[in-house]
Amino acid sequence: MKQGLLFVVSGPSGAGKTSLLERLFAQDDNLRFSVSMTTRPPRPEEREGRDYFFVTPEVFAQARREGQLLEWAEVHGYFYGTPQAEVEKLQREGWDVVLDIDVQGAHQVRERAEDAIFIFISPPSLEVLGERLRARGTEKETDLARRLADAEWEMGFREEFDYEVVNDSLEVAADQLRAIVVAERCRIRRNPTNQ
Amino acid sequence: MKQGLLFVVSGPSGAGKTSLLERLFAQDDNLRFSVSMTTRPPRPEEREGRDYFFVTPEVFAQARREGQLLEWAEVHGYFYGTPQAEVEKLQREGWDVVLDIDVQGAHQVRERAEDAIFIFISPPSLEVLGERLRARGTEKETDLARRLADAEWEMGFREEFDYEVVNDSLEVAADQLRAIVVAERCRIRRNPTNQ
Repeated sequence: MKQGLLFVVSGPSGAGKTSLLERLFAQDDNLRFSVSMTTRPPRPEEREGRDYFFVTPEVFAQARREGQLLEWAEVHGYFYGTPQAEVEKLQREGWDVVLDIDVQGAHQVRERAEDAIFIFISPPSLEVLGERLRARGTEKETDLARRLADAEWEMGFREEFDYEVVNDSLEVAADQLRAIVVAERCRIRRNPTNQ
Repeated sequence: MKQGLLFVVSGPSGAGKTSLLERLFAQDDNLRFSVSMTTRPPRPEEREGRDYFFVTPEVFAQARREGQLLEWAEVHGYFYGTPQAEVEKLQREGWDVVLDIDVQGAHQVRERAEDAIFIFISPPSLEVLGERLRARGTEKETDLARRLADAEWEMGFREEFDYEVVNDSLEVAADQLRAIVVAERCRIRRNPTNQ
């Protein structure tokens, strides 16, 4: 069984990463998300080991200390992390694994998983991102200004990635994301025993 | 105008490179073949500067000596070569250029054009290649044995390439070739000023 690849998909929030990943997974049956570890309590519909591994802050801290996490972050007081063993288990089973994480998480993965493929999803411009967020009408102007400032900061990580998909047309961007996955499967350095 | 990419497509003869490139060009209007230089006399339907640059052996030899050729080869007593200036002109105009050349030509390009993307088109196996050639019924068994021996030797160049497209199903292989082109256009190192 050929070892699977690891794709890290990241970018400023609001760039449309989630929609693009939904489309990608709908078209490709060799991809898997890795299950994260979190200290957040489960929601009613969430199941242990499927949606998350729900752990105590002590267990999380230990996993972190022992270097078991490919990346981790604190969001609104809860910890979230990607257990490296989970990712590698899926890869050994032949799945190509996708991590849907923020730019700081991607930065952490880069230091631990050299073979990973880093894909940056970006908005056509910060102006367009602002218009899109405004069009949703769900955010106050102050929140919106903060999100745009965050996005600008996040755009600064772009150069750390291997590929950029500019989400202007969803159709075109989804095609590009899929093309990157297909092309990386054809890379020779990853198939040394193919013949 | 963004500088175009250079794709070098090669592989054993009989692997189906020509059919795959036809499909690729039919789906993509930003690709151009580079016009080669040759000492072979033009056929009635061929036009100077469109099909080839037809030159004398002396002009060809001078171009070679002066390092003007990205790669060159002698086939049945005639010389064929790729003028580097032609490739670069197309790239400056924003075209992504495709070179359809043999593995030795690809090897030469590798030494002169570091940024080029090397794609190896291979048959599923030498056995399948043999069956395909035999099914055509156009070759004598001795010619067939020679072609298979050539193919085996050509397969030895595989590791010099960035990507491999195994032409098992033409449909799947054409999709992979197109994906490589689309993905390479998304590579960040090639778009330093994209934002």
